[in-house]
Amino acid sequence: MSPKATIYDIAKELNISAATVSRALNNNPKISKSTCDLVMATATKMNYKQNKLAQALKSGKSHNIGVIVPRINTNFFASVIRGIEEELYSHKYNVIICQTHEDEKREIENINMLLNAQVDGILMSVSNMTSENDRVIEKALEKRVPVVFFDRKKNIEGVSTVTINDFGAAYTTTKHIIEQGCSKIAYLTGDRSLEIYENRFNGYKQALIDNGIEFKDEYVIKIKSSVEDGHSAAKKLLKLKVKPDAIFSASDFAALGAIKELKEQGYKIPEDVCVVGFGNEPFTEFMELSISSVDQCSVAMGKAAAQVFLEQVKNKDGAKIEKKVVLNGELLIRNSSSKIKS
Amino acid sequence: MSPKATIYDIAKELNISAATVSRALNNNPKISKSTCDLVMATATKMNYKQNKLAQALKSGKSHNIGVIVPRINTNFFASVIRGIEEELYSHKYNVIICQTHEDEKREIENINMLLNAQVDGILMSVSNMTSENDRVIEKALEKRVPVVFFDRKKNIEGVSTVTINDFGAAYTTTKHIIEQGCSKIAYLTGDRSLEIYENRFNGYKQALIDNGIEFKDEYVIKIKSSVEDGHSAAKKLLKLKVKPDAIFSASDFAALGAIKELKEQGYKIPEDVCVVGFGNEPFTEFMELSISSVDQCSVAMGKAAAQVFLEQVKNKDGAKIEKKVVLNGELLIRNSSSKIKS
Repeated sequence: MSPKATIYDIAKELNISAATVSRALNNNPKISKSTCDLVMATATKMNYKQNKLAQALKSGKSHNIGVIVPRINTNFFASVIRGIEEELYSHKYNVIICQTHEDEKREIENINMLLNAQVDGILMSVSNMTSENDRVIEKALEKRVPVVFFDRKKNIEGVSTVTINDFGAAYTTTKHIIEQGCSKIAYLTGDRSLEIYENRFNGYKQALIDNGIEFKDEYVIKIKSSVEDGHSAAKKLLKLKVKPDAIFSASDFAALGAIKELKEQGYKIPEDVCVVGFGNEPFTEFMELSISSVDQCSVAMGKAAAQVFLEQVKNKDGAKIEKKVVLNGELLIRNSSSKIKS
Repeated sequence: MSPKATIYDIAKELNISAATVSRALNNNPKISKSTCDLVMATATKMNYKQNKLAQALKSGKSHNIGVIVPRINTNFFASVIRGIEEELYSHKYNVIICQTHEDEKREIENINMLLNAQVDGILMSVSNMTSENDRVIEKALEKRVPVVFFDRKKNIEGVSTVTINDFGAAYTTTKHIIEQGCSKIAYLTGDRSLEIYENRFNGYKQALIDNGIEFKDEYVIKIKSSVEDGHSAAKKLLKLKVKPDAIFSASDFAALGAIKELKEQGYKIPEDVCVVGFGNEPFTEFMELSISSVDQCSVAMGKAAAQVFLEQVKNKDGAKIEKKVVLNGELLIRNSSSKIKS
């Protein structure tokens, strides 16, 4: 009656091999029903408790899902995670969160850790586009652990994706700015090796072309998603011979930085310069000068990613499902770009 | 030469029991060196790869640490987690994050999940003070998994804590407000069953008493940490016969809501009403009317929690260490409470 009986104790008690005990406890069809019943009864009698994780190792069902994001401290990623949790909690899944801080090595370590922790699926927004992490993602797929990309995706066979229509959202935003009477529209871009930023850039450029406005390289400045980078980008733009009359930023944080710089130099917003961000971070609404921004349907995106995962799990005959869900972003027009009062 | 050799294959090959193979692979001293060497050589030859998690199950070292917070989408908790990560990454630990959304049931499930995932330690900020979660925390301690509380703590034997001096920070803040010439100081409090909120409340009350100002119940309003609750609390306060000339909020979000309500009703800040928040959320600095707030040394708190954990792990002779680390919060005086220009 040991409180910590092992499969070896049960094997000894029944004079059978530990392997047989293990198989019986896991309902392996190779073991006869009578042996299974005997092992189960003995296990109960001896107060044997199967370690849940060991159980997961056998069954491949831990009911834990791993979520990997570049960082948790933006409203966008926090809200996507909330959407994922809302959807998965009702299906009895636990959610484990990891952040990469945009560090590729950390991203690979996170994936390996989640695989070692026997998660049933990985939902992730990739941190960068090098191919280093492809191998470990493929390892997950080989282990039949479904992977779903949201927002920042790569194109890997067998991996479903949930994104917003970044091209469309940037196109609509640029068109809105043009409708305010602006024609010298600067654009602050994120790292274009990431598809979302490339798509937003293309949406901006296409809207200019479609409205007969010349695209100018000098109006495009690469930034990180930070207040500081917005500050210095605006400083650079204001030194140009032909200063912009609008700044569209692929990041709300950079939009805020740009606004601060513009104000410090005495420019009026939106009268002198219209500003629009991207992401609908809460502070954009809080500000006295509320900032126009694109809402990325973050909670809906999380729910969609979770639903795609659940479909893959339910799909018992193992046929490959590869879904591409595209949600529509929503431009929220606030004071920072409302020159023309309607 | 199977690519997926198991311990049973090795046992068959060597004609010894699976238990012996397992023990040999885990360097169990009961197994002779010659057997160990033979098993290792055969395992290598047969391309056997020990599952890392199975290994962790044996060794009790997964090098994963679980962090549980009420929610990830505040700058405070996100920054504490960053501090924890910065400290633990250099010691080769991975960090797994879970959020409870203040839900006690979820908190218990998170702890159980982390224990099942064989984490080496749990660093957590508790969501509520009922005793339901005591049992599962004690289960962790029984399994020799160190638990460290940060910010929101409970008093449980054997659990170290890292907090800020909430009493002192609230006392200093209230004194600052009094020095601005205010004497009708309202206070928006969080749930006082949580020690941090009880301590902040007591700091506020004591500062009033020490400065000869009568404490009034009607000036204390219970809020959740949200913009909406700040709005409605201010609305209530402005209906009082003797309206407050200052609002000190235990939450930055509620402070923001209060400011919005005050402005809507035409009050000037800080001239008519001083406002101070708590938490130093980034938006408090971003606002045109920057909001005074208490910085909670979040990154330092995370680092300290990680260090306490590392000390416990290093302490090999198993003597119980129970540390109480208290950091000092820092009042940041900004426009919302700067009546007297220095």
